[in-house]
Amino acid sequence: ARNIRLAVIPGDGIGVEVVTEGLKVLEAVGAKVETTTYDLGAKRYHKTGEILSETVLDELRGYDAILLGAIGDPSVPPGILERDLLLKIRFELDHYVNLRPVKLFPGVESPLGKARPEDVDMIVVREGTEGPYAGAGGVLRRGTPHEIATQESVNTAFGVERVVRYAFDKALGRTRRKLTLVHKTNVLAYAGDLWARTFDRVSLEYPDVETDYCHVDAASMFFVSQPERFDVIVTDNLFGDILTDIGAAIAGGIGLAASGNVNPDRTAPSMFEPVHGSAPDIAGQGKADPTATILSVAMLLDHLGLSGEAARVEQAVAEDLVERLAGWAGRTTHEIGDDITARVAG
Amino acid sequence: ARNIRLAVIPGDGIGVEVVTEGLKVLEAVGAKVETTTYDLGAKRYHKTGEILSETVLDELRGYDAILLGAIGDPSVPPGILERDLLLKIRFELDHYVNLRPVKLFPGVESPLGKARPEDVDMIVVREGTEGPYAGAGGVLRRGTPHEIATQESVNTAFGVERVVRYAFDKALGRTRRKLTLVHKTNVLAYAGDLWARTFDRVSLEYPDVETDYCHVDAASMFFVSQPERFDVIVTDNLFGDILTDIGAAIAGGIGLAASGNVNPDRTAPSMFEPVHGSAPDIAGQGKADPTATILSVAMLLDHLGLSGEAARVEQAVAEDLVERLAGWAGRTTHEIGDDITARVAG
Ligand SMILES: CC(C)[C@H](C(=O)O)[C@@H](O)C(=O)O
Ligand SMILES: CC(C)[C@H](C(=O)O)[C@@H](O)C(=O)O
Repeated sequence: ARNIRLAVIPGDGIGVEVVTEGLKVLEAVGAKVETTTYDLGAKRYHKTGEILSETVLDELRGYDAILLGAIGDPSVPPGILERDLLLKIRFELDHYVNLRPVKLFPGVESPLGKARPEDVDMIVVREGTEGPYAGAGGVLRRGTPHEIATQESVNTAFGVERVVRYAFDKALGRTRRKLTLVHKTNVLAYAGDLWARTFDRVSLEYPDVETDYCHVDAASMFFVSQPERFDVIVTDNLFGDILTDIGAAIAGGIGLAASGNVNPDRTAPSMFEPVHGSAPDIAGQGKADPTATILSVAMLLDHLGLSGEAARVEQAVAEDLVERLAGWAGRTTHEIGDDITARVAG
Repeated sequence: ARNIRLAVIPGDGIGVEVVTEGLKVLEAVGAKVETTTYDLGAKRYHKTGEILSETVLDELRGYDAILLGAIGDPSVPPGILERDLLLKIRFELDHYVNLRPVKLFPGVESPLGKARPEDVDMIVVREGTEGPYAGAGGVLRRGTPHEIATQESVNTAFGVERVVRYAFDKALGRTRRKLTLVHKTNVLAYAGDLWARTFDRVSLEYPDVETDYCHVDAASMFFVSQPERFDVIVTDNLFGDILTDIGAAIAGGIGLAASGNVNPDRTAPSMFEPVHGSAPDIAGQGKADPTATILSVAMLLDHLGLSGEAARVEQAVAEDLVERLAGWAGRTTHEIGDDITARVAG
């Protein structure tokens, strides 16, 4: 088989460190990968004023997948790099599924005192290309007492239906086969109505999937009080953003949370990234946990059809996490990466 | 002093049961109260088609305060009663501060295994009259593959500044004097910019208040992993809705979460209500915990200047909660109400 062509965007802060470990694991698992690194992020922006040119974007389209570390630096006004780099890639490459497993591995301590691994085992299917992230809105009389700022959530039947269908398919492939729609239909009447109607209509084609609905406030509460309630969740871009951070917390922390920005139609490469940010406060110190990136590499392998390799990486991580319980904490980014690499290779 | 004139809206489901206990406590604390009950909610809607008439709304304006149980019933399409009754009152009576303490009482078990009462002790100041709750938005080509549904968040300098000021004042009156703005400025650029600029500008007038900013996703995570991070939080209507449900979860459950819909300018009566809903599944069975309503009564007393009485009610609840730890669980709604009433009276 031909090599996998992978674009790598280490990005800012700890992004660089964790991506190094992710690539080590990718090599160890024996996947034939050819990587090209893109120095996008704060440094490039300061040097050239460029965030993401059309040329680079077009180049990215040519790869089989993208691995991203983290984007964002205090030297750049908040939102600039997030919107014009990260969100731009998600939107332009039509990553309409933002796939985020929430899974408590055995041996990992959850802040929820009573949670067992079987209680916290879900997948959040977050919409990735519309909703409140559309960037629509405006401002009048900025800086005056009469300022008004609006922010618009844009939801289309096309956009909602495709992610809902994806989620039903995902649920069908799981043991519990339960899909929960999360929205706020009692307040966000127009958007909520479209989501709820689409969900109900598509559900008729999936009689084997049990369905449920939860308002986002209740769902956020249940993540803490009854996480076992959930199997697969489908939700909008903003609610998914919030829920998956709560998910990261209950599953043992943001250092373990992986994600895939997936284009299921494969009209463009999908992008895999840890859920965490660039953490400038600990950057360059070897303190970052590369596990979230390594688990994102497993998702990447799975997406490319290398499910055996993906399983090996996930298994290596699972074993490493049990060791941590036995006192293997306090390792550096490199050491954790090396240990997981050794398990994958051996 | 003249009697307090109180409008009571028991509402639907367990609303009726918990309000009964709240009123018992109110009487026992010796506050001179004259109550008028309004049978608003699902029953009235089915009987008369009326949800909240202008006449009733005008009558409500004449009271010193409102006590509400819960609104909502499965027999009414979702959102109808919420929007045309609950949210209508909040908007029409200009309840621009939705005040929601998140407090872990000693003796109460939190799902966060390691949380101590001193770790979970904050107040969320949620905006109550604009933002994503404005009801703005629309739909085109409903029910077709070309449907588009929008939902607009409307934020005004006037609306943001007044709630931000309230929050700074609130923070100034606390021991820690820390105020955190929660928003999503990196994505919701227009609204986030207005909130952040207003927060920064007003902060200059409060040099004694320590300020912080958190994106809503990170804040939701920190509620679970580091609740001690927060003292007072100010945020928009939707983020506040989500955060306070997470808050209820970490503070021991929705059965204990009180709230006030406050009009600080006193141009109309404020309304106090438990954060929980009407819980139709357990309605009429004496299973509901009236504690959230009783704590809401304490907030009501405090708002009316009866801070001594408010403190007595809160103290009675605190004592009752410690008893529960010692095996006083399993009581009915009435029994809990009676026990707290006895403590308040004696
Ligand atoms: C950095 C930010 C724009 C991003 C988001 O909101 O999607 C992040 O929070 C995430 O969840 O990947
Ligand atoms: C019932 C609903 C409209 C309401 C809200 O979203 O404000 C509730 O969740 C609350 O928090 O009081």
